[in-house]
Amino acid sequence: MEITRKNFKDSLDIIYQAIDEAEFLAIDGEFTGISDGPTMGNLSNGLDMPAARYAKLRRHSMNFLLFQFGICSFRYNPNTLQYVTKAFNFYLFPRPPFRNSPDTTFVCQSSSIDFLANQGFDFNKVFREGIPYLSRDAEQELRDLLEERQRQANEAASSAAPVSPSTHVIPDEHKDYIAGIVQRVQEFLEDLACETMDLEPCTGYQRKLIYQVMNSRYPTGLHFETQLNNKKERYIVVTKASEEEKRRKEADKFVKEQDDLEDAVGFSKIVRAISASGKLVVGHNMLLDIMHSVHQFGSALPEDLNEFKELTNCMFPRLLDTKLMSSNHPFKEIIQFTQLGDLHRRLMESPFKVPTIESPENFPAYNTATEQLHEAGYDAYITGLSFITMANYLGTFMHPAKQHVTAQSALIEPFVNKLFLMRIIDIPYLNLTGPDPKPKRDNVLQVTFPKEWKTSDLHQLFSAFGGIQVSWIDSTSAFVVLSKKEQVPIAKNMCQDAETYQIRTYSEYCRWCACIPILSKNKVTTSTENKPWIKKRKHSVLECKINQSVAHQCMNWNGDAEPSTSPSQPKPLPISESDEEASKKAKVVADSVKKDWNKIGTGGQSSRKWETLKEEMCSEQSSDLFEVPENW
Amino acid sequence: MEITRKNFKDSLDIIYQAIDEAEFLAIDGEFTGISDGPTMGNLSNGLDMPAARYAKLRRHSMNFLLFQFGICSFRYNPNTLQYVTKAFNFYLFPRPPFRNSPDTTFVCQSSSIDFLANQGFDFNKVFREGIPYLSRDAEQELRDLLEERQRQANEAASSAAPVSPSTHVIPDEHKDYIAGIVQRVQEFLEDLACETMDLEPCTGYQRKLIYQVMNSRYPTGLHFETQLNNKKERYIVVTKASEEEKRRKEADKFVKEQDDLEDAVGFSKIVRAISASGKLVVGHNMLLDIMHSVHQFGSALPEDLNEFKELTNCMFPRLLDTKLMSSNHPFKEIIQFTQLGDLHRRLMESPFKVPTIESPENFPAYNTATEQLHEAGYDAYITGLSFITMANYLGTFMHPAKQHVTAQSALIEPFVNKLFLMRIIDIPYLNLTGPDPKPKRDNVLQVTFPKEWKTSDLHQLFSAFGGIQVSWIDSTSAFVVLSKKEQVPIAKNMCQDAETYQIRTYSEYCRWCACIPILSKNKVTTSTENKPWIKKRKHSVLECKINQSVAHQCMNWNGDAEPSTSPSQPKPLPISESDEEASKKAKVVADSVKKDWNKIGTGGQSSRKWETLKEEMCSEQSSDLFEVPENW
Repeated sequence: MEITRKNFKDSLDIIYQAIDEAEFLAIDGEFTGISDGPTMGNLSNGLDMPAARYAKLRRHSMNFLLFQFGICSFRYNPNTLQYVTKAFNFYLFPRPPFRNSPDTTFVCQSSSIDFLANQGFDFNKVFREGIPYLSRDAEQELRDLLEERQRQANEAASSAAPVSPSTHVIPDEHKDYIAGIVQRVQEFLEDLACETMDLEPCTGYQRKLIYQVMNSRYPTGLHFETQLNNKKERYIVVTKASEEEKRRKEADKFVKEQDDLEDAVGFSKIVRAISASGKLVVGHNMLLDIMHSVHQFGSALPEDLNEFKELTNCMFPRLLDTKLMSSNHPFKEIIQFTQLGDLHRRLMESPFKVPTIESPENFPAYNTATEQLHEAGYDAYITGLSFITMANYLGTFMHPAKQHVTAQSALIEPFVNKLFLMRIIDIPYLNLTGPDPKPKRDNVLQVTFPKEWKTSDLHQLFSAFGGIQVSWIDSTSAFVVLSKKEQVPIAKNMCQDAETYQIRTYSEYCRWCACIPILSKNKVTTSTENKPWIKKRKHSVLECKINQSVAHQCMNWNGDAEPSTSPSQPKPLPISESDEEASKKAKVVADSVKKDWNKIGTGGQSSRKWETLKEEMCSEQSSDLFEVPENW
Repeated sequence: MEITRKNFKDSLDIIYQAIDEAEFLAIDGEFTGISDGPTMGNLSNGLDMPAARYAKLRRHSMNFLLFQFGICSFRYNPNTLQYVTKAFNFYLFPRPPFRNSPDTTFVCQSSSIDFLANQGFDFNKVFREGIPYLSRDAEQELRDLLEERQRQANEAASSAAPVSPSTHVIPDEHKDYIAGIVQRVQEFLEDLACETMDLEPCTGYQRKLIYQVMNSRYPTGLHFETQLNNKKERYIVVTKASEEEKRRKEADKFVKEQDDLEDAVGFSKIVRAISASGKLVVGHNMLLDIMHSVHQFGSALPEDLNEFKELTNCMFPRLLDTKLMSSNHPFKEIIQFTQLGDLHRRLMESPFKVPTIESPENFPAYNTATEQLHEAGYDAYITGLSFITMANYLGTFMHPAKQHVTAQSALIEPFVNKLFLMRIIDIPYLNLTGPDPKPKRDNVLQVTFPKEWKTSDLHQLFSAFGGIQVSWIDSTSAFVVLSKKEQVPIAKNMCQDAETYQIRTYSEYCRWCACIPILSKNKVTTSTENKPWIKKRKHSVLECKINQSVAHQCMNWNGDAEPSTSPSQPKPLPISESDEEASKKAKVVADSVKKDWNKIGTGGQSSRKWETLKEEMCSEQSSDLFEVPENW
């Protein structure tokens, strides 16, 4: 169902109801761009630590606009054993709500716009009919502004002293014009048959002069109000009115402004309803969607990653990323390509079982036979389908097999609140409710070299060590991943007399960075001014400790004393099902995780993720550094 | 005539012909925004010096996109005594020309977008069908890139040593896929009936693997090429080809790339044609149009204002701004509102005479009865009409009256190459061919005060001096314009013991600024790297000296020994007409200028411009600082 400014208010009840009755919600966003950094490649160093990656995305991606938002609700019908879906495709545009309200600027990236244009994206619908929205902060500012204006109007009304005409000087060139207006108003006042009169449209300055002159000439008996005609020109309406009527008109105006503000909150109401529902929100490769959602509809993104995690937990307490799910055990063994369209197609084949879907009567439904990829509503829809298919696949591991795995099932817990990290080799996810996985990187070197060097020079330098993986940091340094950690001392030794380049182990590099913090170029602020989320800090620190403790238990349970280096271990956190069931599930998942764990080994071995990275980065032309996150 | 990517190439001849036969051209641009500065007000301090204003516009306006460009050619038909017009409305979009070419980002301002949306602007046409363009620098970079790629391809072909298969490792999960491709290609090679074969679409990484394997397996006999299907998926085409055919195919590919580059230059070709024609280019309030045109189609804007003037002179040797023309003598006395729509309507009335226009057969014409304001082509059209009307009005001052004043007439010379400066009280224009008018400002004070102060505090402080004009610099300082320069020492004296605030005369302030340069926040670079316009510097310095000398003569001719403080003196620079005529004209213009000059006095008196400024800045709500340059 397409939702624009035109049908938004009338559709609110339908949308709220869909959220209310849903078992879970799937979302997707379309943006005006991905990275406004100096080069695209900068956004994706394969060995970024989560805080550095977050800082890069915050810095180089948040100026783009999330301008289409898809929400698809999924409700299970136990009678038909089918899912009932309602997909909504929202067009968003930050139209300034009042004439004086702050203006929003946003960046567009021409490749992204061109991509969407080729997909038939309707930009006119966005810019002409987009639904407005306000962040919490912007809403509060506007609310304060309106209240201050109302307070001033009341004060002025109660002092009631008419302004002396002498304090207002009318410039010569406007004197005739104003004299004409005065005459018309006087005639109107004397014409008993007329109750109201429209003046001709005029400039803001002329209106200012008219208001000044009229307020001093006619302190009582007349009411003046600016209105907009259908040519978007402003004109003054004069009405005969008692003091009582004037007060009522002013009060009506205030109510109208409050209504306009409510309208301006617009789409943020939907996000708040999702937030309040506490329901599972499913997305595909959803880190950017979530960052944009927090930024546009919640609060400005904090600099600190942990503060971002807290804020996100407040807005979206339960998230699941189907890209992460499909990239990890037990799916990664049988799913080769995890881009949304590829994933959806793969999940239509054995061993997966496509869920049957019913659409409510009179509700437009998507047809997966005619793909509409990159329409946010459609992408949300197939993201939800993919989630159900994968969740039900997990159910087949149960004894007896579980036909319908719910969004509350402990089976999916290992994937909850973990967001996929694009193109990071050895950190599979951002953990929203605890510390992130800590990679060992004992086979990684950091090399500094002259700016003329290219990847081929590094391959040549390390040719004795077999295959290496190069990950550029900047124009004069890169990470080099060796195939075995035992090669590290040999490489360091071999190069110790070199003059043109320098080699550090990864841990040496980290210690060096701690002295010269270059990973994040943003200054760290210590002030808590204008950071409403800080208020929640105390509680969240407690939560964080709990999470750390849980995480630590899981690590131990995984047979690893330290936070793990493996790229993927779903960790079962049993909740909300019967003990017996949880126990069964835990065994299944634990067994498969352990099998997976043993297969991967203890670091140093090239992971599947690196291959995916190469695949996404490479094309037949070696200079092709252009990266398009796959939800484009 | 609407021009998009679809009909651009086919329309080139028509456009070139229109430029070629034109007496003059009128232009107009529509942008995605005006200012991305911290607040709108920052862009318009009424006492900005030209260099500071240029720096602000360069910093806060150039990230927006000029995405609709109107050009209207005007040719005088001496047989019918009418103008023949051809109006073109170009949609522009910086689509990345090649897969690997640098991406462009641009900023949108929501109020501007909303404004255009309300005018029915077609964003889909811009983003789906916009004509590409390249700056000179970007074009050169791409040309270098293509040539380097071609050089590498030739080198690789001439070395001809097939790459050893062992150097390419095929990851396990792709081995089956590649083996399948190898088998298909082998069968194709053996099938004598087939000359060409399309492989299935696949990922960039898979194509890379295929190219590697095929180049080592089949160094001769087969040609591989990536193509795009109508679903925008890339696939490889395999063709049986001799070495000769392969070389030819590679050469064809290079030619194709060169053609693509030509296409990518796109709209810049039109601007270059205008530039080469040297014809008069007329615009309305055209500083931003010109800055954007130089920036998008020429070179990145230099930091230095004088360098910008030189660059602009190279690209557009003859410019005329109808906003400046209509705001100055002899027009300002009879034209109250100078926004384009207002001006056009005013010029349809007495004493002006609307020129009659003919449209060429089969050429779509605009009808001024149904206004299409803010469509760039229409705005260019009525800008040109306004110019003709005003130029012909100047002709009525001649004895005998001149019916048709041409774009080459000395009558219009006083207005040539002077661009209107929005909302600067006492500097009427930016002089593109010489030093800018230097205001006296001997009645201006600069006041520094606590950040709690508002305009009303300043009015109160100076209440003893009658009306003042306040022009904010930042949150703790402002200019205060007194009505008489004689009040300056009294004001300074009165305030000398004050502790909370500080008062400087304008000249004290300038000396202080010279020590702490805060007017321009941009660092001044001394390097000439990447500044192609610097090459022209020597010649331009000479030109500049000539201009200074000419300007000085004019000043003297105006009876003023120093560069003038008056807001408006058209200066006749006789060219290209008979001596007799020039002499007559000079007398007319000189007389009227002198009359105007005497009326305005020697500074200190509130000029018309300040009233216009107030008018544009004010509305009935005092907090309304929102500024919309009027070509919006």
